[in-house]
Amino acid sequence: MSLIVVGTMAFDALETPFGKVDKIIGGSATYVAWSASNFTQPIKQVSIIGGDFPQSEIDALKKRGVEFDGVEVVPDGKSFFWSGRYHMDMNTRDTLITDLNVLAQFNPQIPENYQDCEFLMLGNLAPAVQMSVINQMKKRPKLIVMDTMNFWMESAMDDLHKVLGMVDVLMVNDSEARQLSGEYSLVKAALKIQKMGPKYLIIKKGEHGALLFHGTNVFFAPALPLEEVFDPTGAGDTFAGGFIGHIARTKDISFENMKTAIIVGSAMASFCVEKFGPERLVELTHAEIEQRIEEFVELVNFDINLVQ
Amino acid sequence: MSLIVVGTMAFDALETPFGKVDKIIGGSATYVAWSASNFTQPIKQVSIIGGDFPQSEIDALKKRGVEFDGVEVVPDGKSFFWSGRYHMDMNTRDTLITDLNVLAQFNPQIPENYQDCEFLMLGNLAPAVQMSVINQMKKRPKLIVMDTMNFWMESAMDDLHKVLGMVDVLMVNDSEARQLSGEYSLVKAALKIQKMGPKYLIIKKGEHGALLFHGTNVFFAPALPLEEVFDPTGAGDTFAGGFIGHIARTKDISFENMKTAIIVGSAMASFCVEKFGPERLVELTHAEIEQRIEEFVELVNFDINLVQ
Repeated sequence: MSLIVVGTMAFDALETPFGKVDKIIGGSATYVAWSASNFTQPIKQVSIIGGDFPQSEIDALKKRGVEFDGVEVVPDGKSFFWSGRYHMDMNTRDTLITDLNVLAQFNPQIPENYQDCEFLMLGNLAPAVQMSVINQMKKRPKLIVMDTMNFWMESAMDDLHKVLGMVDVLMVNDSEARQLSGEYSLVKAALKIQKMGPKYLIIKKGEHGALLFHGTNVFFAPALPLEEVFDPTGAGDTFAGGFIGHIARTKDISFENMKTAIIVGSAMASFCVEKFGPERLVELTHAEIEQRIEEFVELVNFDINLVQ
Repeated sequence: MSLIVVGTMAFDALETPFGKVDKIIGGSATYVAWSASNFTQPIKQVSIIGGDFPQSEIDALKKRGVEFDGVEVVPDGKSFFWSGRYHMDMNTRDTLITDLNVLAQFNPQIPENYQDCEFLMLGNLAPAVQMSVINQMKKRPKLIVMDTMNFWMESAMDDLHKVLGMVDVLMVNDSEARQLSGEYSLVKAALKIQKMGPKYLIIKKGEHGALLFHGTNVFFAPALPLEEVFDPTGAGDTFAGGFIGHIARTKDISFENMKTAIIVGSAMASFCVEKFGPERLVELTHAEIEQRIEEFVELVNFDINLVQ
C-alpha cells in the first residue's frame, strides 16, 4: 500500500508582495511528503540532499512516516537551492537563482525495501532521472504520476516523450500543456497529450483551479477563493501530494476517485499558500483538512432541478 | 412574473483569431433577451435603436416573446455601433470604434404596461440611465440585477455608487471588481463591494468561470472547457440572461437558487462563444440547453467520502 515519492529536497529563497525569506525548506518531494503523509504512511522518499540539510527537518518528516532509505546524503555537498520572486498576481514568477549543487549528481537508486510499491509519484526532475526510477521498479506500480515543466520541453523533449509513454497521469500547468501540445485550447491540448502516453491529464491553473481529462471526460475542481495568497511556492507539489495521498489511501485508481483526489489536492494546496514555504502544512490538523474539504463541497455544490 | 431588460441593441464589427465580421447584431439587451427568453416570457425590452436596425431581427425577437413597447426607434438615427478585436487568449480585447449614435440620446421611458414587473435586469449603461429606470418603477422589483464596466468607474463613480445602493445583484468581471474595490483579492473585493449596496455579487472570470458572493458565502461555477472559443462577444450578457431568466422562471431569489441560475447562465454563455455574435443563441433548442447543463453537472460533480 505504500507510496514512493521522487523529487527534490531543497532550500528556497522567496520574495512575494507580502514578504521575503532568505532560506526556507523547499523542494518538490518535501511538499509532496508533507501533504501526502496526511493520508498515507509510510512514504518512501527518493531524493538527494547535502550535509547542510537540517537534521531537524529530516526528523520531523520521519515522524510523519517518511522513510529516508532512498534519500542520498552528500555530507560535503550543498542541497539544491532555488530563489524566485512572485509578481502581484501570484500566478507568475521570475527565477532569480538556480544552484543545482548535489542535484547535478542525482542518480537515484531504488532500495530493495521500496520495491513492490503500488504508487509512484515522480516530482519534476530531468526526464532521464524519472525514467531511470521507473526502470528500476521490478514490478510496475499500479499508478505512476509525473510532474514536469517547460524547461524539459525545451532541453530534453526526446527523453520527455519516452517517459510520457511510461506513465499513467501527467500533471502540468496550463502554459506547459499548451507548450507540450502546441494547442492553445486546453481541450485540444488534452486530447493530444493523452496520445503521447498518459491516459489521465491534470492541468493545474493556479488560482483558477484544476482540470482532469480522461478520454473525452472532463472534471473541474476550483481553487478556494482566498483572502490572501501569501506564497504560492510548493502549491503544485502540495496538490500532487494530496492527490496521490488520497489515491494511495483508497487504492482506487478509477476516474471517479481521481475526481475526489483532485479535490483533496486542491484543499491541501489552499493551505500551502497561506504561509511561507511548507510552514502551514507542518502545523496542519486532520480536522482542519476535513473542514477545508467541506468548504470545497459547499463551493461547488448546486441543486439542479430544471423541470421546465 | 415578467422581466424588464434594459440595455443596448446595436451593431458590432468583430475580429477574432478565427475570423472577422463587419456588421452583426449585438448589444447587451439583445444577448440578454435571446438568452433569457429560453426560460421566461414575455421579456419587456427597454432600449433605443436607429431606423437601420433590421425589422427581421425585431420580428425574430418578438417571436421569442420580447416586447418592444419600451424600445424607442429613431427613424433617421443610426443604432449604436461597437467594433473590437480579440487577442489570442480571447480574454482580452481592444475596442476599435465606439459610435454611440442614438444611444447618446437614450432617456428610457418605462411604459405603463411594464410596471409591476418582478425582475429587472440593467445591462451595462451609464449609471444615471440605470438609476432613472429604477426611479420610474412604481413598485420596486423583487430583484434588481445590474451590470457595469470600468469606463463608468473612471467617468461616473458618484452616480455608480448611487445605483449600487439601489440594486440587489452586481455583475462585473474580475478586473472591474478589483478596480471598484481597490482590492486585489477577490474575496476582499467582494466584502467591500457588498458594503456599497448589492447583497449579491457575481464576478465573471471568462474562461475561468464565475463566483457568487453573498455575505461570507461563496459559490463557484466553472466555464465549460471548450475545444474552440470562436467569439466571446456577448458571453457576459448571455450569462446574465440565463441567470435572470432562470430566476424569473422560478421566482426564487434565494442564494441556493442563484447558484443554479449561475450554472444556467454559464451553460448559455458556453453556447454564445461557439459562433459569431448571437448566431448560436438564435438556433438553440431546449434539448441542447438541458444537455449542456447536464455537462456542467458532470464537470463539477464529485463524490466525497473521506472516512479516514
